[in-house]
Amino acid sequence: MSKLEGACIIGQSGGPTSVINSSAYGVIRTALDAPEITNVYGAAHGIKGVLNDQLYDMSQEDAKELEYLLYTPSSELGSCRYKIADPDKDDTDYQRILEIFKKYNVRYFFYNGGNDSMDTCDKVSRFMSKSGYECRVMGVPKTIDNDLFGTDHCPGYASAAKYIATSCAEIYKDARVYDTGMITVIEIMGRHAGWLTAAAALAGTVGCAPDLIYVPEVDFDMDKFLADVTAVYEKNGKAIVAVSEGIHYADGSFVSEAKASATDGFGHAQLGGLAALLANIIKEKTGAKVRGIELSLLQRCGAHLASKTDIEEAFNAGKIAVESAIAGETGKMVAFQREMVDGKYNCKYVLLPLTSVANYEKKLPLEWINEAQNGITADFIDYALPLIQGEPDRPLENGLPRFARLNKVLAK
Amino acid sequence: MSKLEGACIIGQSGGPTSVINSSAYGVIRTALDAPEITNVYGAAHGIKGVLNDQLYDMSQEDAKELEYLLYTPSSELGSCRYKIADPDKDDTDYQRILEIFKKYNVRYFFYNGGNDSMDTCDKVSRFMSKSGYECRVMGVPKTIDNDLFGTDHCPGYASAAKYIATSCAEIYKDARVYDTGMITVIEIMGRHAGWLTAAAALAGTVGCAPDLIYVPEVDFDMDKFLADVTAVYEKNGKAIVAVSEGIHYADGSFVSEAKASATDGFGHAQLGGLAALLANIIKEKTGAKVRGIELSLLQRCGAHLASKTDIEEAFNAGKIAVESAIAGETGKMVAFQREMVDGKYNCKYVLLPLTSVANYEKKLPLEWINEAQNGITADFIDYALPLIQGEPDRPLENGLPRFARLNKVLAK
Repeated sequence: MSKLEGACIIGQSGGPTSVINSSAYGVIRTALDAPEITNVYGAAHGIKGVLNDQLYDMSQEDAKELEYLLYTPSSELGSCRYKIADPDKDDTDYQRILEIFKKYNVRYFFYNGGNDSMDTCDKVSRFMSKSGYECRVMGVPKTIDNDLFGTDHCPGYASAAKYIATSCAEIYKDARVYDTGMITVIEIMGRHAGWLTAAAALAGTVGCAPDLIYVPEVDFDMDKFLADVTAVYEKNGKAIVAVSEGIHYADGSFVSEAKASATDGFGHAQLGGLAALLANIIKEKTGAKVRGIELSLLQRCGAHLASKTDIEEAFNAGKIAVESAIAGETGKMVAFQREMVDGKYNCKYVLLPLTSVANYEKKLPLEWINEAQNGITADFIDYALPLIQGEPDRPLENGLPRFARLNKVLAK
Repeated sequence: MSKLEGACIIGQSGGPTSVINSSAYGVIRTALDAPEITNVYGAAHGIKGVLNDQLYDMSQEDAKELEYLLYTPSSELGSCRYKIADPDKDDTDYQRILEIFKKYNVRYFFYNGGNDSMDTCDKVSRFMSKSGYECRVMGVPKTIDNDLFGTDHCPGYASAAKYIATSCAEIYKDARVYDTGMITVIEIMGRHAGWLTAAAALAGTVGCAPDLIYVPEVDFDMDKFLADVTAVYEKNGKAIVAVSEGIHYADGSFVSEAKASATDGFGHAQLGGLAALLANIIKEKTGAKVRGIELSLLQRCGAHLASKTDIEEAFNAGKIAVESAIAGETGKMVAFQREMVDGKYNCKYVLLPLTSVANYEKKLPLEWINEAQNGITADFIDYALPLIQGEPDRPLENGLPRFARLNKVLAK
């Protein structure tokens, strides 16, 4: 493969995670150290930064501050949810990207994101190829949702899972201090896939399992749900219930968006989210004290509970993307393959064609959902437990997290 | 002071904290090691466990499991919110407590809780004294609310503050990834005092300060609030707002309980709590994307972020209660005095009469609230920062918190 010299761009896209910046650091550090790469640019707000000619010059950053990216949640370069057009229908954006690539002699493009981002990556890659402009394009995966196709798991998922399992264990302790009854409903992210909600089951490995878990891979039935909750409550005087934000009825409508006419007496959509809605319905049905807790976006940015394994794998995904591109690869995403070495979990890094990854969603296997559809099997625990291992030596200042502080100097 | 031999009871009461069990461990460990104390009993669900003759024999517990109490959130012995009668009006409960004390030869009673618990403690102490039954009664403080009178701060507060500040810093990072506008409202506990909400300001020491902070020490004005938020949003395109759950209008009514007739068009109480209510009102006013986040009870049970300083002080409070009682003290609460030793924060432990503590609430000093009543001054930072220092070496299992697992064997 021919040696290719030129600049690179790293962009971040989609919802942030606790370790997306670890991947960015993997790209930036490796690229800064690579003789083939003449300049390293960070796109402000993903592909929008390319379109708007807003590129940060990464050589202007302090090396230590860049290293702090390993422990800094959210997308430090800025993210976007910009849906790029189909180049066969409208190639305006692509012509502009090409213009910018030429302006800065960009020969390497790394895009760090989820499903939609891999689609963007794929389209850019194919357009550059078609245009005869040599530019190697690599996807670096991330998503707390863990729904990317072709990879054993996604960077970002494990840290969110660790946050969720830890929080569920703590809520478990809190929810049984009084001898009066209590039902707790915990709402967890995941619009279409139950990976995150399933992570609540990990709390069971330290004796703090939720009683019931509902994921969006199966249809939700409110009557069955109320019967499940009531049965646990009547038996134990307590119940902890984990629900995915994406649970839906058989007709596909989200429970969170239901008009609660029959249940809360007001006949209007709830404002407080699914946990508040379900808490209200359970309260009316059982008369019990019910608490709704939404883990909210803290589950995706709670980097203080990031898994060391996740941080390292996220970093490696970025590093390997750069190394592979320099070696001649393009149009690929770095993916993870699980292997057991001497009985221990090990992550192997492989490259997948972007076309095979983009726009597919990987769901929780149905066989990992129990027969009653209100719990998760041990297969999931075996899958997820290795991923959440390890405590990073995260930098602190004043007893609080010390995040990266970048200069963000625009390239000239 | 005469030497007093006999059994002791430790009870926990009120809302749990991340370190209330550290105090319980301070009492239990010290009492188990004290030759004057013949038996150590843990009351199941506070004073209710005494009334119901449900006492756990602490000598039946594994020493290592007891030590795990240092890192186990929530009230491991069980808590209660039982309001004991005025003994001058109805002494039924007190006669029963005396009966149980006599049955087990209880000569030491340690009660671990907040305002109401200190009141219970005080009443029990005075009744025993009046009855001529020698029993030394000591209060061990705890409350995340930090509103106990006579002590510089309360065990439990610092860990909650650390959780709040860390979470606010992480939300700060998450709330600025997109270049589209975003307003985030963070709801923090504290019905009557703003100590917890003020802790959001600590995030400013790592460059992640909320823009606006509202505490219940001053009246809330919705029009001024909306003007404040809009001004920040118009200037920065982003706004992070921390509000106490206890903010109230000038007439004393809680904002969270307001009928939102004029604002949301439905004319009914909101179900989703204050954050959802305010998010909705702001959205209607500004048209911005607004997110409401309730830190929920995780702020009181998030022991994975406990402050080492807090754990140590909580343990010492329990230890000193036992040592002081053995030395002859009774009717006192262990309190904290701040002192500077060689320019460094140090906690000095003192004893206060329970009568001087019970039923008073300590508010955030008004001079620590800025003139615009939408922020917190540097005096608060100086006060709170030393308290959140230190990371405990918390025990883990499977990458998740390893909490104490007690046998809870009932005393015969």
